[in-house]
Amino acid sequence: MKFKVQDKQNQLIENISKTTVQYDYMKLMIVRGSSYHKNFIINCERVLNVKIRNVKSSDFSVISPLINEWWGGRQMSDMLPKLFFVHFHDTSFIAEKDGVTVGFLVGFLSQSNSNVAYIHFVGVHPEYREHHVGKRLYNEFFNVVKKNNRNIVRAVTSPSNKVSIAYHTKMGFMIENGDKEVDGVSVFSDYDGINQDRVLFVKAID
Amino acid sequence: MKFKVQDKQNQLIENISKTTVQYDYMKLMIVRGSSYHKNFIINCERVLNVKIRNVKSSDFSVISPLINEWWGGRQMSDMLPKLFFVHFHDTSFIAEKDGVTVGFLVGFLSQSNSNVAYIHFVGVHPEYREHHVGKRLYNEFFNVVKKNNRNIVRAVTSPSNKVSIAYHTKMGFMIENGDKEVDGVSVFSDYDGINQDRVLFVKAID
Repeated sequence: MKFKVQDKQNQLIENISKTTVQYDYMKLMIVRGSSYHKNFIINCERVLNVKIRNVKSSDFSVISPLINEWWGGRQMSDMLPKLFFVHFHDTSFIAEKDGVTVGFLVGFLSQSNSNVAYIHFVGVHPEYREHHVGKRLYNEFFNVVKKNNRNIVRAVTSPSNKVSIAYHTKMGFMIENGDKEVDGVSVFSDYDGINQDRVLFVKAID
Repeated sequence: MKFKVQDKQNQLIENISKTTVQYDYMKLMIVRGSSYHKNFIINCERVLNVKIRNVKSSDFSVISPLINEWWGGRQMSDMLPKLFFVHFHDTSFIAEKDGVTVGFLVGFLSQSNSNVAYIHFVGVHPEYREHHVGKRLYNEFFNVVKKNNRNIVRAVTSPSNKVSIAYHTKMGFMIENGDKEVDGVSVFSDYDGINQDRVLFVKAID
């Protein structure tokens, strides 16, 4: 789909080809631009130049230090050891703008269940949230899942991570029925160890 | 291979069928029995009744609390989240004696490199070390690696884990050349994050 990006004086900035999803997002940006025209060009430029590619082992040393930073200082990087970058290239993605990392998704195809894929960890640069970087990363993952003839995607999060719960719900994930409720959300108690309750998500991929 | 277990009065305890590896170990136990006959029956009994099977998801809740205990109180269980028990059944094993867990090995087939398998985490009950539980777990893993037509096994450890370095070397793993040496061992600096140096092992499987 061809799409024309213009500034507020209707001057052409760029002619681009985009998918429907990206086109919908660009329309949204234009709507925003009409109200928030100061940010319009910046927002367009942010979206347009974000490129997504598969991770390489060497990306670990770039991404690992970013994790605690993006999570507001919480010690999260232990959850993502280098092994995921070494052994799961083909189902893990990095989003970059002008060579700067603005997001990543690390997932894999379940070895035990040949119909399932699992998203282990997703992060987006705080300044690039609301710019569909996460959505593009998830869609890349869904595409590779489909190519591998799998149609179930699973993910797990902590009940305290309300942003993740809202995001997965918006992305069409269902919440599996656990053994108790926390703030109206069904959770599996002690799922990831003692006092480590988890929300389990599942999504069927067409 | 048939093998006869006798007590010190040459009274038959059990006729058993064992693999060559297990037979070699039983011979060793008998040699030990001749010097340490008080322990002979106990040692035989320990070895004979250890069964190895693939892990199930539900084994996580048994194994996870054991890890910090077996590692002398070090906080190690975070390295082994439940996902490994859910998605890598077929390359992960548990050793049990009379239903009690005495060891485990968690590994997987590399998704990015179709010739490689990776051992992520191995633990043996402190009272069952020197009883070849580890060796049996590694051999189960090597067998499943071969069945999957792969011939390289990799593992990673911390330079401070001298027991692991000695054990992998004894099991025929080579140490890969890193960028510095720690106590005469080649290591990769900052491999698993800042100040997280690692020793990398590799073994070819025939």
